[in-house]
Amino acid sequence: AQEEADDGRSRVFADLTPEELAQVVQYLRGSLGVPLADAAHAKPSDNCIASVDVQLPAKAEVLRFLDAGGARPPREALAVLYFGAQAEPNVTEYVVGPLPTPAYHRDVTVQKYGGKVPYHRRPALPAEYKQVAEFFKIQVFPAAPSFMHQVMEYDGANLAAVTAAPRGSQSGDRLTWFIMFQNVSGFFLHPVGLEVLVDHSSLDLAQWAVHRVFYNGQYYRDMLELESIYVQGGVHVEKVRRAPQDGDFSSMRPRAPVAATFPLQYEPQGPRYSVRSNHVIFQAWSFAFGMSVMTGIRLFDIQYNGERVVYEMSVQEALSVYGSNCPGGMSTRYMDSSFGIGRYASPLVRGVDCPYTATYVDMHTLHEGMSSSRKTTALCIFEQNLGSPLRRHYSNLQSLYYGGMVNSALVLRSITTVGNYDYVWDFVFYQNGAIEGKVQATGYTSSSFFHGNGLQYGNRVWEHTLGTIHTHFVNYKVDLDVGEVKNSLVAHDMAFEMAQAPWNPEQQIERPRLTEKVLDTEDQAAFRLHSTMPRYIYFATNQKNKWGHQRGYRIQIVSFAGDHIPEASSMERAISWARYKLAVTRRKEEEPTSTSIYNQNDPWTPTVAFADFINNETITNEDLVAWITAGFLHIPHSEDIPNTLTVGNSVGFLLRPYNYYNLDPSIYSPDGVFFTSE
Amino acid sequence: AQEEADDGRSRVFADLTPEELAQVVQYLRGSLGVPLADAAHAKPSDNCIASVDVQLPAKAEVLRFLDAGGARPPREALAVLYFGAQAEPNVTEYVVGPLPTPAYHRDVTVQKYGGKVPYHRRPALPAEYKQVAEFFKIQVFPAAPSFMHQVMEYDGANLAAVTAAPRGSQSGDRLTWFIMFQNVSGFFLHPVGLEVLVDHSSLDLAQWAVHRVFYNGQYYRDMLELESIYVQGGVHVEKVRRAPQDGDFSSMRPRAPVAATFPLQYEPQGPRYSVRSNHVIFQAWSFAFGMSVMTGIRLFDIQYNGERVVYEMSVQEALSVYGSNCPGGMSTRYMDSSFGIGRYASPLVRGVDCPYTATYVDMHTLHEGMSSSRKTTALCIFEQNLGSPLRRHYSNLQSLYYGGMVNSALVLRSITTVGNYDYVWDFVFYQNGAIEGKVQATGYTSSSFFHGNGLQYGNRVWEHTLGTIHTHFVNYKVDLDVGEVKNSLVAHDMAFEMAQAPWNPEQQIERPRLTEKVLDTEDQAAFRLHSTMPRYIYFATNQKNKWGHQRGYRIQIVSFAGDHIPEASSMERAISWARYKLAVTRRKEEEPTSTSIYNQNDPWTPTVAFADFINNETITNEDLVAWITAGFLHIPHSEDIPNTLTVGNSVGFLLRPYNYYNLDPSIYSPDGVFFTSE
Ligand SMILES: [Ca+2]
Ligand SMILES: [Ca+2]
Ligand SMILES: [Ca+2]
Ligand SMILES: [Ca+2]
Ligand SMILES: [Cu+2]
Ligand SMILES: [Cu+2]
Repeated sequence: AQEEADDGRSRVFADLTPEELAQVVQYLRGSLGVPLADAAHAKPSDNCIASVDVQLPAKAEVLRFLDAGGARPPREALAVLYFGAQAEPNVTEYVVGPLPTPAYHRDVTVQKYGGKVPYHRRPALPAEYKQVAEFFKIQVFPAAPSFMHQVMEYDGANLAAVTAAPRGSQSGDRLTWFIMFQNVSGFFLHPVGLEVLVDHSSLDLAQWAVHRVFYNGQYYRDMLELESIYVQGGVHVEKVRRAPQDGDFSSMRPRAPVAATFPLQYEPQGPRYSVRSNHVIFQAWSFAFGMSVMTGIRLFDIQYNGERVVYEMSVQEALSVYGSNCPGGMSTRYMDSSFGIGRYASPLVRGVDCPYTATYVDMHTLHEGMSSSRKTTALCIFEQNLGSPLRRHYSNLQSLYYGGMVNSALVLRSITTVGNYDYVWDFVFYQNGAIEGKVQATGYTSSSFFHGNGLQYGNRVWEHTLGTIHTHFVNYKVDLDVGEVKNSLVAHDMAFEMAQAPWNPEQQIERPRLTEKVLDTEDQAAFRLHSTMPRYIYFATNQKNKWGHQRGYRIQIVSFAGDHIPEASSMERAISWARYKLAVTRRKEEEPTSTSIYNQNDPWTPTVAFADFINNETITNEDLVAWITAGFLHIPHSEDIPNTLTVGNSVGFLLRPYNYYNLDPSIYSPDGVFFTSE
Repeated sequence: AQEEADDGRSRVFADLTPEELAQVVQYLRGSLGVPLADAAHAKPSDNCIASVDVQLPAKAEVLRFLDAGGARPPREALAVLYFGAQAEPNVTEYVVGPLPTPAYHRDVTVQKYGGKVPYHRRPALPAEYKQVAEFFKIQVFPAAPSFMHQVMEYDGANLAAVTAAPRGSQSGDRLTWFIMFQNVSGFFLHPVGLEVLVDHSSLDLAQWAVHRVFYNGQYYRDMLELESIYVQGGVHVEKVRRAPQDGDFSSMRPRAPVAATFPLQYEPQGPRYSVRSNHVIFQAWSFAFGMSVMTGIRLFDIQYNGERVVYEMSVQEALSVYGSNCPGGMSTRYMDSSFGIGRYASPLVRGVDCPYTATYVDMHTLHEGMSSSRKTTALCIFEQNLGSPLRRHYSNLQSLYYGGMVNSALVLRSITTVGNYDYVWDFVFYQNGAIEGKVQATGYTSSSFFHGNGLQYGNRVWEHTLGTIHTHFVNYKVDLDVGEVKNSLVAHDMAFEMAQAPWNPEQQIERPRLTEKVLDTEDQAAFRLHSTMPRYIYFATNQKNKWGHQRGYRIQIVSFAGDHIPEASSMERAISWARYKLAVTRRKEEEPTSTSIYNQNDPWTPTVAFADFINNETITNEDLVAWITAGFLHIPHSEDIPNTLTVGNSVGFLLRPYNYYNLDPSIYSPDGVFFTSE
């Protein structure tokens, strides 16, 4: 019943239901002809289902259904299988359908990636981290008993290991630095100076081995060597005082008693938006939403006044590149989609993460084990009175009047906690037809053990803690369909022309004029991170507004990005989306994402290399997609303790109507105010 | 009694009271030995008081009073006198004191400006615009009776004239284009194609003359010529349909009936801040505020936890440079401080301009006539729950816990309406010690009559209306005193270094590292508008935080600026602050502002040229001031009708603690939330 809000049309974009997920698992277990282990406990040498997510139908099919009375596309799932128990271990992606009662599965791996996906590229399952933890406990630490006891005060539970990534230096490597922290609240800020390089490439756990050990600035062949030099007194020990369980300085426990409550928002006549199934309506806006296990929040079919503006708007990736004088830190280039931006969607806390009055939505995902899990309050939707005018004018010339309207907008939010960091993902719908995508970073900063020349890589933020310099980069896909599917990309800017005043030839005027350029190839529409970009860039349609201007939507980016990584780097192509603050390409069904979950563990042979999308195709009058990169440089400082703050660490983009409507559509909002002295 | 909140210490920064203003006027009338006309009706050939504002004591004197038990500095006023009835007409600035009973006045003109201020530089009084309007009505329009009647349907009241500025092309000129609009609601969008160049430089109104006339793309010597060619049929007439009184498309009347109300904010336990006289306290924050007639809102002595962070933070100027194919438009380079950013502070409307629950403050100014006027609700102060977390982390690794805090901040706001535009000036105080300065632009866009090659200068936004391309530039003065009065300016950034992995010489690592540079001269600290700026720039003190880092506050700028004006322009020095997105100079008592109210009417001989402040003085360990420029390029489009929207038209800066506290001070806020599974 609820699903019928828009006749269930939005369901074409919906995530799989728990029932659908269960059907897919049951079908796969019965149809693949191999035993499937439970991913929650699977060994690398097992076969298992790594994740199941919805397989969205092709855009053409969806548009036929939505716009042209075509049939509803079949519901399908995408299952990612780890085949560790095959002669040639690999990752295989199957499309399974039709739901709710699957009858077929199709191996789409080669079609999607141009070849098989070697097993070593697979993202690590939580089970693998558990196996690594066991390996440490049973094999690694016992090899250095005196050191572990005397220096680490190791008791079997007081250390937490954090993984670096990528893992090694060439395709096939699974050679990971694990960084040891005191296992207390906020452990990311409690490095103890011990880091261990583990080769866990073998499918046989018994073959896993330590390749190198780092302690307080020195490298050792293995724990045995560390132990032996330690007992000989040759290790420079920097003993870390044992932190209390609450982490002391790393605790988020408030240091002040509760006092008068902060201002709260209420809705005098109740919510002014509706959320039915995955479909949202707010004033003239409507859209569908979903949550990809890997890339997180995504919106579809965003319409204003019944006219589609955006077909898809989605998060693609969050990248962090670190510097440090410790090996784990200096190796770290996290690509969060590989860990799972949707998988790690955090439960949202009422009144802090979102307003009390927000609508909270649960999600269901299958990414570990044989059954789906319910993620409670994984998403919130609310209207926010931003406390300032969307527009206003007070006239004291000629006649006295006042007109204005408060800026009250709809926000859809999810927060991802991939390990230490929390990304607050917002999509905001303004009453003037503008859409905002915004991400704020908070949570714990990563850190290294402070030693030696550490200050070359960050600020010391506690006694033994170096807040390591790093970047945050985020990539969005925005498939604008402005007015129609086919668009062009147009740039407007200003330039000064020197003119004589027409009324006085002796008077020189430096006159701003409007410059216009159609960016007609992908190469022209790919703007390097630190290049100059025309100040107005917009998706334009051949449709004209009332005054003969091409109707359009402008892209405005807010970013404080650092540099992504030198292009000479052997792994650069895996994150080549980060070369560009904006790149507009022809939309292709076979270029659905700017990266791949397999890029993290084999960036040296990227499964998807965004740079290849940009091959100078013409982009006039085509279905276009904007790939937007925003980010900031983060040099952690004392105020990042205990948590990074969202203020100033907020980047993103705006989509703003540009000659799209004949006048500001917010004039049709019921929220407008006008009074006059007459 | 109220004034005693901080023992009245903040009163040292307070605006003059109505009583003080009256005393100054009375004193001047009795002491200058010349008759003073009422500025509200003064002729150019009269003497009059143009404005009276507080004269703030020198910083050294204030600091002695505030920090060292020194005597309270005497209250003084600054009076700007127009002496049109003197042998050498001029503008004179007097410091008048001591208040409340003045006993002396001191001519400070030469001391401030290095010379007398010639009369032609004076900002136009409202009286002068009334005189111009009379001139049009009585002399100009009657010279073209047929044209005015048949083409303009002139009835004595249906036209409104808007002034361009500056006025001419060289020092001494007072030669202004006035642009005619239909006198309806939102007239700025109703150009009729007629513009008139008036020479109003003479102090004798009878000598005022028309120098040129523009109509629909053609120039005429005067109205007589226009009339004569018109009656001969030689004028290409583009008749504009008479707009209804409400302006039709330019009206802000909502086009939809009122419906359910938007969300509102309430304060469950009342306001958590206090406003006493000109002093505000919010959590750990305190500051004083005032409103300069000319430059608008300004804050002083901003303290966090009792420690001063900023001595002065103030708006300096708002500049707009226009392009057009009409003479008024192409001549326009508005410098709003000359019109009076404080003078035109708009009454704030509850629930739209600021939240219902805000505290509204009236101001008193004397800028016209002989007595002060009360500006009701000229300023609002409120706490805003921004609806998102200031920080948060949800831990699902090792232990289960959640910590977070909502972002609830104090906002101080005023809105200036100088003619068509409304600037929303916000200063925001966050609980983590960050301060934001932000300006949003709204109100009516300026426009030109659409004709000929108009599309080279903007978009057509209505039948006869060209939305003309222009820039918005805003300049702030931020006198940070971080930790102590003497600071240095330090830049942190990242650079990649190529390193061998210490554990594997065959592995190359592109490693981000922290670069540091002390910017030790003014020239090094002056960053051109489109230059690359180090990503972290901060005011640093010699004081160290707990970990040995210089305590600092970082400046982060948000701007989408266009270009200001070519430096070859004969008026560029008058707006040379706009060359730089950031310039840090040694603070000087004799460099209180980056511009002058006299620059608008004589930009060719600027009374204050900011570029001169930058003379390569060393700036290590000195009292420093940051001059911040933010702005955006505005190409008006159909959605600017009827009003420009604040979304995306918001620029400013953040001041963020950088190793200033030993940890995030928001941890001491009562708003923190923490819970754990244990
Ligand atoms: Ca392509
Ligand atoms: Ca498209
Ligand atoms: Ca200087
Ligand atoms: Ca200073
Ligand atoms: Cu960070
Ligand atoms: Cu504008």
